[in-house]
Amino acid sequence: MTASRPGSPLGLHRVLDPPGVLPQAAWRLDTAATLWPDEVRVRVKRLNLDAASFRQLREAHQEDPAAMRAAVLDIVATRGKMQNPVTGSGGMLSGVVEEAGPDSPLGLAPGDTIATLVSLSLTPLAIIDGLASWDGKSEQVPCDGYAILFGRSIATRLPDDLPAELALAILDVCGAPALTHRVVAASPGTPVVAIIGAAGKSGSLAAAAARHAGAGRIIGVVPHQQEADLLAGAGLADAIVIADARDPVRLSRAVATAGGPADVTVVCVDVPGCEGGAILSTAQGGTVIFFSMATSFTAAALGAEGVAADVTMLVGNGYVPGHAQLALDLVRAEPGARAIFERRTVAHADQAG
Amino acid sequence: MTASRPGSPLGLHRVLDPPGVLPQAAWRLDTAATLWPDEVRVRVKRLNLDAASFRQLREAHQEDPAAMRAAVLDIVATRGKMQNPVTGSGGMLSGVVEEAGPDSPLGLAPGDTIATLVSLSLTPLAIIDGLASWDGKSEQVPCDGYAILFGRSIATRLPDDLPAELALAILDVCGAPALTHRVVAASPGTPVVAIIGAAGKSGSLAAAAARHAGAGRIIGVVPHQQEADLLAGAGLADAIVIADARDPVRLSRAVATAGGPADVTVVCVDVPGCEGGAILSTAQGGTVIFFSMATSFTAAALGAEGVAADVTMLVGNGYVPGHAQLALDLVRAEPGARAIFERRTVAHADQAG
Repeated sequence: MTASRPGSPLGLHRVLDPPGVLPQAAWRLDTAATLWPDEVRVRVKRLNLDAASFRQLREAHQEDPAAMRAAVLDIVATRGKMQNPVTGSGGMLSGVVEEAGPDSPLGLAPGDTIATLVSLSLTPLAIIDGLASWDGKSEQVPCDGYAILFGRSIATRLPDDLPAELALAILDVCGAPALTHRVVAASPGTPVVAIIGAAGKSGSLAAAAARHAGAGRIIGVVPHQQEADLLAGAGLADAIVIADARDPVRLSRAVATAGGPADVTVVCVDVPGCEGGAILSTAQGGTVIFFSMATSFTAAALGAEGVAADVTMLVGNGYVPGHAQLALDLVRAEPGARAIFERRTVAHADQAG
Repeated sequence: MTASRPGSPLGLHRVLDPPGVLPQAAWRLDTAATLWPDEVRVRVKRLNLDAASFRQLREAHQEDPAAMRAAVLDIVATRGKMQNPVTGSGGMLSGVVEEAGPDSPLGLAPGDTIATLVSLSLTPLAIIDGLASWDGKSEQVPCDGYAILFGRSIATRLPDDLPAELALAILDVCGAPALTHRVVAASPGTPVVAIIGAAGKSGSLAAAAARHAGAGRIIGVVPHQQEADLLAGAGLADAIVIADARDPVRLSRAVATAGGPADVTVVCVDVPGCEGGAILSTAQGGTVIFFSMATSFTAAALGAEGVAADVTMLVGNGYVPGHAQLALDLVRAEPGARAIFERRTVAHADQAG
C-alpha cells in the first residue's frame, strides 16, 4: 500500500502548509496512513515531550491534566505533528513498526520496537486514544496512534538490556553528550567544563561525556540543595555550585569560585534567560554549547557582544553520528548517571533536565 | 559629576527592570545623564538600526515615516534603550564623546568622534530631537540625544580616511567578516564557502573575508537578478546563484550546482526561515554561521537533527578581537566591497544586508 505522488527522503511530500518548506518548519503535515515507498509507519506507544514544551504546557494549564491533554490533542489535530507552537519544540516517540515501505533505507521490519531520534516537530502523527492514559504529570505520555518516518529520519531499536522507559529517556537527550564529547575532546589540554543543570537528564549525561572526553575539572551547576545532593550522590562532578542560571553575575561568580571560568560551558536547563550567565561563566576563547530549546538566538548573539566576550557559541545540534550508542554506553558505564535517570523517570518530575 | 552608587563594568547598576539581569536582557535601563566613574557619555549623532529591526518597523508601519518615528521614540522612552521588542535586536550609534568618567578604561576623550561596537539593545539612550530629521527610508537615523557607555563597552574612533556614514555601515556588520575569517582559516584545505545574502553589507564583507582567509571557492547566493548584477560587479564571488533562501530544497540544489555543498555556509539575510536551507546547503562535517538576527534557535537545532545533518552551527557572535580593524581594512583593500557599501548607504534601501 504505497502512494504514487513523488516522494522525498526529507518528507517534503508531507508538507501541506506552507508549501516548499521542510517538515520541521511547516505549519501542517499530511498524516495519511498510506506510505510512500521509502516511509515507515510506527504504531506509537509513548510520546516523550521535549522538556521546554512540557514545562510550557504545564504552566499554561496550571498542571490540569485534562487541559494539558486537550492542548496536546488540539496541536496534533491541527498541525499533524506534536510541535508546541510556543516553544517550537517537540520531543520523540517510541513504538512498534507496523509497516516499512519497500524502499525504506532505515533497515526496520514490522514488529521492531524502536524510538525516533528525529524531533516530533517534523514527524507526522495521529493520536487515536485521546491520551486517556496520560496523567499530565510526566513528559512521558502513553499514547496510541501512528507516526510516519521518512527516508532520512533517524530511528533506533530499543536495547534489550535496559527498561524501555529508561532507554527512551536516554535517547531523548542523546545529542547533548555526543556534542559535549566532541567539543571537550577537541579542546586543548584538560579543559574546565561547567554544566549548567548538571543534575538533569541531558546535564548528567553531558557531565559523564565530558569526563570520558578528558575534561580536567567538571563544575556542576544546580538550582537548589536537593539537586546538589542528587548530583553529589551520582559522583559526576568535581565541584557542585548552587546558583540561579538566570542571574548572570551570581552564576559566573559561583563558577569562578569553583575553579572557573570554564573552557567549555554546557547549558542544559530549559528555562529562558540563561544566555548571559553562560557567556560570563566562560573564559575568553572558550565555547558555550546551548542545548536548551528555551535559548534565544538574539540574547546569545547580543549578550556576548555586549560584554565583549570572545566565546564560540554552538547551537546544540541534536544529531551527531553515533549519538544513541554513546549515550546508552555512558549510562551503562556510569552508575551515577543511571541513578539520576532512574530517579527522574520514576519521579515523573524533571525540573532541571 | 559622578554617581556614588556602586557601579559595574557590565552596566548592572543601570538595570531597572528586572533586577539582576544584564543590560541586554533588561526590559528597562536607567538613562540618567550623570556618569558612574567608569562610564562615558556620548552625544549621539546617528543611530544605525539593525537590519532585522528596521525591516520589522518598516513593515509594521507600512513605511509611514511618522509612525516609524513614533515607534522608535516610544521604544526608547519606555525601555531606556533602542531594542526592538519584536526582533530583540538593536543596532549601533555614532556620536561625539561629551564626558569620560575618571575611571573609564575605554581611552576616549571629550570631542572624539566614535561609533559603538556594542548593541543598542544594551546601551542607555535618551533622544531629545524627536527624530525630526529621519525620513524612515534608511536604517541610518539622524538623531540628537545622548548615550552611556560602560566600562566593558566597546567603541572605536571613526577613521579619518573614510566618510563617516560609510565607516558606520562597515562597523555595524564588522562581526560577520571577523568570525567568517576565523572559521574559514581554521577549515582544512581550501574550503568551499557559501554566502547567503552575498550582495548585502555583512554578506559582501564576509565574502571578502573568506577570500582573505583562504577559501577555495566562494558561492554567492542572492535573491534576484539585480543583486546578482551588483555582486558580479563587485567581483567577490566565484559563482553567483539566484535562489530564495527560505526555500531549502531549491537553495541547496542551487548551491550544489555552483560547486557545493559548502564546507562553510554564512547566513547574512535578515528574513526568518533560512535555517533549513543553510543546513541542507552544507556538507556533512561542515559549519553554518548564523549572523541574521531573524534566526530561530529551535528551527536551527531541530532542523539539523531533522535531516540528520552533522553540521556545526555557530551563533554569530558580534565580538571578535580586532573585528573593527579587519572590516575597515577589507573595505580599503577590496574596491568591490566598497562599491557595495557606497551603493547601499546612498541607496538607503538594503534589502539583503
